Amino acid sequence: MKTLVSTCQDAVNTIALDAMGGDNAPDCVISGAAIAGEHHPEIRFLFFGDQSKIEPLLNEHSALKERSEIIHTPDIITSEMKPSLALRQGRNSSMRLAINAVAENKAGCVVSSGNTGALMAIAKFVLRTLPGIDRPAIATLIPTKNGESVMLDLGANIECDAENLVQFALMGAVFSHTVLGKKEPSIGLLNIGTEELKGHDEVRIAASILRERPIPGRVLGFVEGNDITAGTVDVIVTDGFSGNIALKSIEGAALLITHFLREAIESSLMAKLGYLLARGAFKTLKKRADPRKYNGAMFLGLQGVCVKSHGGTDAEGFANAIEVAHNLVLRGFNERIAKEVAAQYGINGSVPSQTAAQED
Amino acid sequence: MKTLVSTCQDAVNTIALDAMGGDNAPDCVISGAAIAGEHHPEIRFLFFGDQSKIEPLLNEHSALKERSEIIHTPDIITSEMKPSLALRQGRNSSMRLAINAVAENKAGCVVSSGNTGALMAIAKFVLRTLPGIDRPAIATLIPTKNGESVMLDLGANIECDAENLVQFALMGAVFSHTVLGKKEPSIGLLNIGTEELKGHDEVRIAASILRERPIPGRVLGFVEGNDITAGTVDVIVTDGFSGNIALKSIEGAALLITHFLREAIESSLMAKLGYLLARGAFKTLKKRADPRKYNGAMFLGLQGVCVKSHGGTDAEGFANAIEVAHNLVLRGFNERIAKEVAAQYGINGSVPSQTAAQED
Repeated sequence: MKTLVSTCQDAVNTIALDAMGGDNAPDCVISGAAIAGEHHPEIRFLFFGDQSKIEPLLNEHSALKERSEIIHTPDIITSEMKPSLALRQGRNSSMRLAINAVAENKAGCVVSSGNTGALMAIAKFVLRTLPGIDRPAIATLIPTKNGESVMLDLGANIECDAENLVQFALMGAVFSHTVLGKKEPSIGLLNIGTEELKGHDEVRIAASILRERPIPGRVLGFVEGNDITAGTVDVIVTDGFSGNIALKSIEGAALLITHFLREAIESSLMAKLGYLLARGAFKTLKKRADPRKYNGAMFLGLQGVCVKSHGGTDAEGFANAIEVAHNLVLRGFNERIAKEVAAQYGINGSVPSQTAAQED
Repeated sequence: MKTLVSTCQDAVNTIALDAMGGDNAPDCVISGAAIAGEHHPEIRFLFFGDQSKIEPLLNEHSALKERSEIIHTPDIITSEMKPSLALRQGRNSSMRLAINAVAENKAGCVVSSGNTGALMAIAKFVLRTLPGIDRPAIATLIPTKNGESVMLDLGANIECDAENLVQFALMGAVFSHTVLGKKEPSIGLLNIGTEELKGHDEVRIAASILRERPIPGRVLGFVEGNDITAGTVDVIVTDGFSGNIALKSIEGAALLITHFLREAIESSLMAKLGYLLARGAFKTLKKRADPRKYNGAMFLGLQGVCVKSHGGTDAEGFANAIEVAHNLVLRGFNERIAKEVAAQYGINGSVPSQTAAQED
């Protein structure tokens, strides 16, 4: 194991992992890192957590061990801990010290499966928001008929004013462009009708601001709940309350249809036989809607990349969250946001560059 | 065709239909009534709309014609019309006059596939809210793993205070009890976490009021988006913005999974063959999640039963909306609400009884 990285370029490829967060920690964190490491030989890992628990697991993965370092941390932030308490009392926790590594430019990004509220509170406090961005938002990829969309906010901000929504639209558009490669992303504000008169003040004012303000994408106005998975737009912008409810409603509906499908197949011998023949197709279907593929909620709008992995995911899912975080760094998401903010508000939004990635 | 009914008992079994609302009007309204009429020989229909269009259609259904009456109305409320305009200028519209029939006790309920906003505005103005209920809410049945739940509000009230949510909980519980036959319905407030500290003020205050106030059901606290289709509770209470987004997100997700499933089946010959064998099971699945089965959004909290059918539904779907409305009348939903309100607030909430149905 090497010592802590010190140069910028090393930091880009170094990922800080909260080894103690989530239901299956630290096992799932180490196995997940092993999988991500196989896909990305350039990545180095910093594991923050209980050395006595991490070390034996790391010994089982010699290739991973070669490019990893354990930073022993005495404390853990539990899933029940209130964010304010985690902020005050978690100074020596695995979560806090992993986030610190990003602030100190020892890592390019941090991934944790721990307490979402605590992670957001600490990340906000330690990393601070990007110049021109008032509030960070939680974003995730959503499978649609036309590929993938990005939706934000998913719960960081229960109440948002119009300007918050406008900033989310900007971040979503930049994400869609720089990370997903969409040339001119289409943007929709989540509402309960597509008419201009519908919805509460915030969403209507945001729509009118977006009609005037230059943004790297096409603002298509309002979209409705069913548009999220229809792929009507590349970026769905909403407040954290509605976004969280929409995302979880979608997850629930997918589970219900799968449940109905399973029951239907098990209802007769002919159906079972049919299922056996179509097994390959069902596997494709399962893979396409696999929640692990969509694991990794991004905290956008911070001066540093922080990704929240689902607390109950497995190694495959955690590996995906690592790749989501790494991708944000490699594509220079934050640098591009800073550039957009500087262009729009005249704010000097330069952030410490963590990447040499070519910007378009 | 008989003349307009005049006695109360006749009104219970008389349904006023806005024959001009929706994409497939008046065809779908007449064919839908024919289907509902076959299931319920006791029902009589009043068709409000353009006589020259309704009459030829009715001539094709002799059994239906026998128990129907056409009330010619010169005007139509279009789907684009603003509710305020519809209220002012729609006095001679099919929608308005169909609602008037309920207010005048000539019909037990009204069903329309027309403009939702206009329907709610006119129904509120003409029928007025039930004593003790400040605002009507839109409710619908939701398929779940454990049968059916009811969710409200779905868009009538974009912003709700805690007391509105408490009243929705009461109406949802009474609906679940009197119409769905649930003995002690479980009630959940839609939120973005199940912890007491989560969510905005309104939902948290509503939860604390519900903990104190007697309500005909068990209040289980907060539920999340995925709980809606999981069947965690019998009644899901939310504001109209979140409820509308949740419902449409669920519809969109169901469409996406169906789309993925279709693509997977069409991807190989083996899968197609498997599908043929399992066809019966797929039919069962399709039937179980058939949106027509869930057509008929109920406007709860008014002194009269008003049901909104989906504008794009077919005859089968419209027939379902008719049965939803008829059921509310037969089960004495409004009378029971009045009783609950009187018991809780000491308000004399008696409404003109439209039904002789046994109340428990």
